[in-house]
Amino acid sequence: MTIRIAVDAMGGDNAPRVVVNGLHHLPEGLDVEILVVGRPEEIAACGDLPAGAEVVPATDVVDMHDAPREALRKKRKSSLAVSVGLVREGRADAVVSLGNTGAFMAFCVSLLSTLPGIRRPAIAVPIPTARGHCLLLDAGATSDSRPAQLRDFALMGKVYCEQVMGIESPKVGLLSLGEESSKGNERTFQATEMIRELPLEFVGNVEGDDIPRGEVDVVVCDGFTGNVVLKFGEGLMEMVLGGLQGVLESQVKNPGDREALESILKGFMAKTDYAEYGGAPLLGVQGTVIIGHGRSAAKAVANAVRAAHRAAQHRVNELITREAAALETSGKEAT
Amino acid sequence: MTIRIAVDAMGGDNAPRVVVNGLHHLPEGLDVEILVVGRPEEIAACGDLPAGAEVVPATDVVDMHDAPREALRKKRKSSLAVSVGLVREGRADAVVSLGNTGAFMAFCVSLLSTLPGIRRPAIAVPIPTARGHCLLLDAGATSDSRPAQLRDFALMGKVYCEQVMGIESPKVGLLSLGEESSKGNERTFQATEMIRELPLEFVGNVEGDDIPRGEVDVVVCDGFTGNVVLKFGEGLMEMVLGGLQGVLESQVKNPGDREALESILKGFMAKTDYAEYGGAPLLGVQGTVIIGHGRSAAKAVANAVRAAHRAAQHRVNELITREAAALETSGKEAT
Repeated sequence: MTIRIAVDAMGGDNAPRVVVNGLHHLPEGLDVEILVVGRPEEIAACGDLPAGAEVVPATDVVDMHDAPREALRKKRKSSLAVSVGLVREGRADAVVSLGNTGAFMAFCVSLLSTLPGIRRPAIAVPIPTARGHCLLLDAGATSDSRPAQLRDFALMGKVYCEQVMGIESPKVGLLSLGEESSKGNERTFQATEMIRELPLEFVGNVEGDDIPRGEVDVVVCDGFTGNVVLKFGEGLMEMVLGGLQGVLESQVKNPGDREALESILKGFMAKTDYAEYGGAPLLGVQGTVIIGHGRSAAKAVANAVRAAHRAAQHRVNELITREAAALETSGKEAT
Repeated sequence: MTIRIAVDAMGGDNAPRVVVNGLHHLPEGLDVEILVVGRPEEIAACGDLPAGAEVVPATDVVDMHDAPREALRKKRKSSLAVSVGLVREGRADAVVSLGNTGAFMAFCVSLLSTLPGIRRPAIAVPIPTARGHCLLLDAGATSDSRPAQLRDFALMGKVYCEQVMGIESPKVGLLSLGEESSKGNERTFQATEMIRELPLEFVGNVEGDDIPRGEVDVVVCDGFTGNVVLKFGEGLMEMVLGGLQGVLESQVKNPGDREALESILKGFMAKTDYAEYGGAPLLGVQGTVIIGHGRSAAKAVANAVRAAHRAAQHRVNELITREAAALETSGKEAT
């Protein structure tokens, strides 16, 4: 099945060059049709597009620093708006952008319906752990999540983790203050009861340190907590690795050791970068949405497109909808 | 002024030995009276106590794994309960324990009143940043914090930071989802309005990555978020530094470089350990409470006692009460 993917050519720090380059990094034989959305002359200046890619013109561009609400109101003709619009119109199955995350999310929430049975979308971010990656959601699509929304997140995270990250029967945990079910707040108490009813491997509460330890494959939390945790982790890694790099340059004398350590530190940094896994999906909306990172390189663009391809091909949304519907008919629905 | 400090001799991983040793690390001339609480024979087996220290017998011990509620009910004669009781009875100004944090908090909340004008206590934890330390509160004393409680936390954090950490006019930020005041949830929107009225340097919203960057001196958040952030950071540091240490052993050949790097990594770990700053205060209760870390060494015990001494000597609670009262009379009180 050919997957049609709208790619916002103008989003990200080195757009459109990095985006166009990225498309050339896609594996041979990937059954995709790419709609490259943006200013045709700027895209053309970046060289030929790969076979199967065509330009969809869009005159305006959302800047990285545009306020989402402003962008939503004033930039209806931006490459970002047009890209999301292609999914809304059914002309694309998926959309990828490395641009302004807030504006991207705003356009998706505004233009795309939520899936039947799903209350709110969630950003799901793969976080590096000692054992691989763990999918954390919601990382900030919603700032106040109700318990039933957390239940939806658990269901969506499980499906995405299984289908796209390839983890069978992923372990799902609810982020809270202690492993005992008596620990937490009103939201987690209620969410625990609801998630327990889902057909998935729910391990109950997990604590903050269980995330980097890789105790679970999916971590469910409200969007406020998820966003804070994600950004705190980014800042902490920057502080530690940045600090170590400085020390390295001044203290390690042996050139071979310096090289070895530099490559190790780079590896750690890469592990915390979106580039490695190709972006974060916005789950729960009609169509496949992959949010790339503004600082991404060509490789990350290709990985984001592949993640979109995989999610669409594995019918993540269809599975989510089916599982949500099964809940409703089994009378386990709660609001 | 002599400060009387109750020290739970039986709390922590190597109690009572580490505690007794720690007392010998106190600086000469520190004007304190130490009440060493625990089993007299076990304390005596650890050698002489320093001058100015005396034993207060307690027959029972709270284990690290005792559930706080159970401890509260069944271990009224534990060294932890007796230590907190000494503050309640006015026989001590401050209490220090390296034992079970949850149980310690439970005894404090149960036995000690909150300060006038303060709704709920908060654990304030100094977090390492690129520029020094930042005081984060609440780190988990309350799991659902109301906006007015966040306002109290801001006030208490400012006073502690000024008086004990020695930072003049500390910058106070509210943890949220973006710098714009439009970002956040209902709780932060309301809290922002309230904190703005306080006589302190409020910079508005900060994001997760602003904490390790050291953008502010005090970070205010609800106890759920604070606890998750704190534990996530501990786990992340463990993962990164643990991973680097393993690589170091296998890849760095030059013995001098290995030694240098090992000491650097140890430095980073120490920076994230309670030992360096002597524990986290539980603010907002009658009496000075310092929560040490179970894995603390003798040096950390001494630092915790010094933090208690400093907080009591600088009349942190008196200042908090005065500022809270000033708010009430100025009509800025809200519930």
